Amino acid sequence: MLEPLKEQVCQANLDLVSAGLVTLTWGNASGLSDDRRLMVIKPSGVPYDRMRPSHMVVVDIQSGRVAEGDLKPSSDTATHRLLYQRFEAVGGVTHTHSPKATAFAQARRALPAFGTTHADHFYGPVPVTRPLTAAEIDQAYEHNTGEVILEAFTGADPMAVPAVLVAGHAPFAWGADAAESVKNAIALEACAAMALDSLLLQPDLGPVEPYLLDKHYRRKHGPDAYYGQS
Amino acid sequence: MLEPLKEQVCQANLDLVSAGLVTLTWGNASGLSDDRRLMVIKPSGVPYDRMRPSHMVVVDIQSGRVAEGDLKPSSDTATHRLLYQRFEAVGGVTHTHSPKATAFAQARRALPAFGTTHADHFYGPVPVTRPLTAAEIDQAYEHNTGEVILEAFTGADPMAVPAVLVAGHAPFAWGADAAESVKNAIALEACAAMALDSLLLQPDLGPVEPYLLDKHYRRKHGPDAYYGQS
Amino acid sequence: MLEPLKEQVCQANLDLVSAGLVTLTWGNASGLSDDRRLMVIKPSGVPYDRMRPSHMVVVDIQSGRVAEGDLKPSSDTATHRLLYQRFEAVGGVTHTHSPKATAFAQARRALPAFGTTHADHFYGPVPVTRPLTAAEIDQAYEHNTGEVILEAFTGADPMAVPAVLVAGHAPFAWGADAAESVKNAIALEACAAMALDSLLLQPDLGPVEPYLLDKHYRRKHGPDAYYGQS
Amino acid sequence: MLEPLKEQVCQANLDLVSAGLVTLTWGNASGLSDDRRLMVIKPSGVPYDRMRPSHMVVVDIQSGRVAEGDLKPSSDTATHRLLYQRFEAVGGVTHTHSPKATAFAQARRALPAFGTTHADHFYGPVPVTRPLTAAEIDQAYEHNTGEVILEAFTGADPMAVPAVLVAGHAPFAWGADAAESVKNAIALEACAAMALDSLLLQPDLGPVEPYLLDKHYRRKHGPDAYYGQS
Repeated sequence: MLEPLKEQVCQANLDLVSAGLVTLTWGNASGLSDDRRLMVIKPSGVPYDRMRPSHMVVVDIQSGRVAEGDLKPSSDTATHRLLYQRFEAVGGVTHTHSPKATAFAQARRALPAFGTTHADHFYGPVPVTRPLTAAEIDQAYEHNTGEVILEAFTGADPMAVPAVLVAGHAPFAWGADAAESVKNAIALEACAAMALDSLLLQPDLGPVEPYLLDKHYRRKHGPDAYYGQS
Repeated sequence: MLEPLKEQVCQANLDLVSAGLVTLTWGNASGLSDDRRLMVIKPSGVPYDRMRPSHMVVVDIQSGRVAEGDLKPSSDTATHRLLYQRFEAVGGVTHTHSPKATAFAQARRALPAFGTTHADHFYGPVPVTRPLTAAEIDQAYEHNTGEVILEAFTGADPMAVPAVLVAGHAPFAWGADAAESVKNAIALEACAAMALDSLLLQPDLGPVEPYLLDKHYRRKHGPDAYYGQS
Repeated sequence: MLEPLKEQVCQANLDLVSAGLVTLTWGNASGLSDDRRLMVIKPSGVPYDRMRPSHMVVVDIQSGRVAEGDLKPSSDTATHRLLYQRFEAVGGVTHTHSPKATAFAQARRALPAFGTTHADHFYGPVPVTRPLTAAEIDQAYEHNTGEVILEAFTGADPMAVPAVLVAGHAPFAWGADAAESVKNAIALEACAAMALDSLLLQPDLGPVEPYLLDKHYRRKHGPDAYYGQS
Repeated sequence: MLEPLKEQVCQANLDLVSAGLVTLTWGNASGLSDDRRLMVIKPSGVPYDRMRPSHMVVVDIQSGRVAEGDLKPSSDTATHRLLYQRFEAVGGVTHTHSPKATAFAQARRALPAFGTTHADHFYGPVPVTRPLTAAEIDQAYEHNTGEVILEAFTGADPMAVPAVLVAGHAPFAWGADAAESVKNAIALEACAAMALDSLLLQPDLGPVEPYLLDKHYRRKHGPDAYYGQS
């Protein structure tokens, strides 16, 4: 079932490697079926050089059970699943340990919008979650990782800032489909790298002017977007 | 029309990718026709791996209208156009979000001439523009980006320092043609990387001696140049 | 003799190159025979591009003598040998001068567990050895390098933290076999890179919560592991 | 004439590119004939992708004149030539603007021996030259660059520390032949990268213990060397 989606998700995982965001087998991308009832996700701990669409695992969103596939799904499946359940416009999720974004997550600092590169993809700072408690880690850890992500987006539009830094862990990014979530993961890593260097050059640097943030975000997103081909 | 120029401009855009200056579809290079009436520029948001000369867009310098091409030109077209109108010796323009130069732009620091690598390409510091006002961003943003670049070069020769850092945004570089603007963008990124590391090693580092700047610049540029093959 | 092990060890050494951990001929990986009586190790100073399984050198663990091979074994052989003698679960050892881990070794700072990437591979900080004395360096230097590594693991399980930073020198990593020791060397370098950037963002950063360290380590290791395919 | 040397020197220049030490056309390597009367050097400003042995230029050491070749030799030829004249054991010279070593040169800081990677190649700190005076730059600049290098090695053995940082400029490295000078340039860049990161981790870091420096240098160099194949 869902063969085209498996191909997209497999390709999305391989694109993470091409983009230099993956060390060893760290990271995973998933995609949601059109009816939002099934997700396709990378299997856990499988080497990228042998990964094929047929290895992708289909998971039922409601029950969390494997609906198809011979391999175990990514250990982060429960986090992906919760994001699909609560973020209604999200059709793809990517988790990486990309080095610069992970440094911000480890330092437990949000990633401010220091320039237009950031504003082109993220309409404001990329938030850092609160740390999980011992109890939240002990039971249903991956589900609770999703819960602190949701908490960080209370009252906010997850499609306007399609990424988060999980404190002490690493980033998650999302988008309309798997490919878009990968693009946002790539943009996040590039913005984190630039932000770190910007802070080395100017330790008390503040975010860009709100009207510059607005302009660049709206150039690429929403009804008045004029970037790219229509 | 302008088929050889389309090939040059397409190649210039692909050279940016080979040089590692491009993430996703960020960045664009353009070239000017010999009569300075038409520019050829990369289409907006098109993936590099499928880019061919026939995708390049021809834009009329005077009117700003597309003269040929099925795709929309780069969203930064108005900035390129203004630079061609006012910088009389410029025949190629490159815009990137290359990470180290962008860090200087975000930190809103000019890039000093810390060594001969810089002096070989830029005869003095690469300036940072003033920030655009809310009104300048709201209306004719890309044109006004060109205006603050022109302002930063008031009374200065843009061919002596063929690059600029747009505050809160990223660099632009230029040259006699598209290929030379790409080379200057590559040199700028390398100089920015070295400058950041130099500042980490010596936070109060000043620029090189003026006679060393002079010597290296004139080794490569102007009537007494003796670098390269004649 | 030990042809399959020679192939594994040769491949492990080449994987270090593919992973970007090797400059020139720096670094070496070895593997132990099933009966723990012989080790297979890279020859000393041989270029990687011409390295074949037949170049691997077989060394007797007890005597330290070459049991087979036309080439001299790695100059670090005595260190590998001592680790195999004393670390009973270790079947593979990798030594690199990978840049970020070496920076920690040179700065003589242990690598703290700043996040889950670290916790996935190392159950606590990666220790730094004490410096060797002049006498220890003068006589049996490579053996004594092994001795200070053992000292750093007094009362600790080397399989729980399968790596060390030798003060003023560089890292060693180990595992159940050569391939696993290479993976741990790769993980160590990635963690060191992230840790350095984390410290630049938050100079007084402390380690992750002990329950988060626990959770991630046990997700991948031990009886309750659920990462990867069983 | 000197066809085998031309091949070696061409290859040495291409190896600089493979090692990632070259941006655009920055950098050059040369080699000396066995009778020390002629040097073979890269032509000035020629793109690496079209470089062939036949492009190499033969220069007379005594007179400085081109002895064979259709192209102009590297603009840094006079520096190479002086090093060959005064450093009697040197048979190859490499000049790069490799980014991390250049950062030390720009910051005008010598590169201390912070670890065994450095000690394996350089028997003590890599010195930084004094700045050239205006007069030295105005006349015979490249020759005088050689003179300040010689000054930095007064009373020292250039083969024990086969590299230097020219203040405000970039590194030169040398060795018994062109290939060895390239290896030393690669080692220098790696050591500079590690040293910068070590200083970020420990700003007041001092050099390694003299007996550790000794041990590692003598493991690889001189009569008691036991690294590599004999």
